[in-house]
Amino acid sequence: MTAPDQPQSAVPADRLPAEQIPVGAEVQLGSHTVTQEEVLAFGQDWDPQYFHVDEDAARDSDFGGLIASGIHTLAVYQRLSVTRVLTGYDIVAGRQLRAVRFLRPVRPGDTLTGTMRVERIDPPVNGRAMGVSSGQLVNQHGKQVLTLDVDFVIRSETSPARRSG
Amino acid sequence: MTAPDQPQSAVPADRLPAEQIPVGAEVQLGSHTVTQEEVLAFGQDWDPQYFHVDEDAARDSDFGGLIASGIHTLAVYQRLSVTRVLTGYDIVAGRQLRAVRFLRPVRPGDTLTGTMRVERIDPPVNGRAMGVSSGQLVNQHGKQVLTLDVDFVIRSETSPARRSG
Repeated sequence: MTAPDQPQSAVPADRLPAEQIPVGAEVQLGSHTVTQEEVLAFGQDWDPQYFHVDEDAARDSDFGGLIASGIHTLAVYQRLSVTRVLTGYDIVAGRQLRAVRFLRPVRPGDTLTGTMRVERIDPPVNGRAMGVSSGQLVNQHGKQVLTLDVDFVIRSETSPARRSG
Repeated sequence: MTAPDQPQSAVPADRLPAEQIPVGAEVQLGSHTVTQEEVLAFGQDWDPQYFHVDEDAARDSDFGGLIASGIHTLAVYQRLSVTRVLTGYDIVAGRQLRAVRFLRPVRPGDTLTGTMRVERIDPPVNGRAMGVSSGQLVNQHGKQVLTLDVDFVIRSETSPARRSG
């Protein structure tokens, strides 16, 4: 389900370094509607528990029907945060996900809307800085379905890779 | 990439309740080889950062080439743990992922092998128990690429859903 807004890659020098990241600002990530086809496909590929892949058996689950895999819900957050924010930052890599909470079931047809905030960027060392962001997805009823904290590594203005970019 | 070993769904009564889960035993989850096609497809769908989706641009990354999304690596762990273990347990749902650490890059062609251990099952309340598992993936060189802890909810022997199953 590659989306139409597939971002173009840019050389790292085009991306904001650690020193230019807005810290403390809540950023809107837009929305994604989770279809039943997508729930079933993700579940069959990555999380084939009966309540993600078998509509009939899912009626016997505590949710009374199909729900999206938590990993699928997390992937929706990742897609929104990357396409709306992270492709503009000179990210080296994610380092850790902390406290990824699945707060409510996500059902086929639910529309998830994301926000994120860079909470902290540590002082750069050797051309890199550690950062921490927090994020959430809410459903079409305004209820949280996912919250998480992400530790990441970002290049600084003094990164040799940026200078050569 | 639905796998050939797609598990059949079973009614919850066929699955092990909280009281029958082996606690403290390390379980082998088998292996999964991450192909370049899979890295690119997952990245394009869910994590389109240049070092996951653009082979040429990825050469300018700190990893010198394409690497798998951390969410993709986590999805590989989920698939292995579900197909080898969790479909035999009467899981209600995942509740939280804690300390999901991406310890080394996963590159196209890497073969990831998983292990998991149920660390604790709390006393059941109202037909459900909270459980905690820990897991890891190592690459073909025996080096850890992923470690995580998972909080989950599992039905107990006294669950009305089991009795009616």
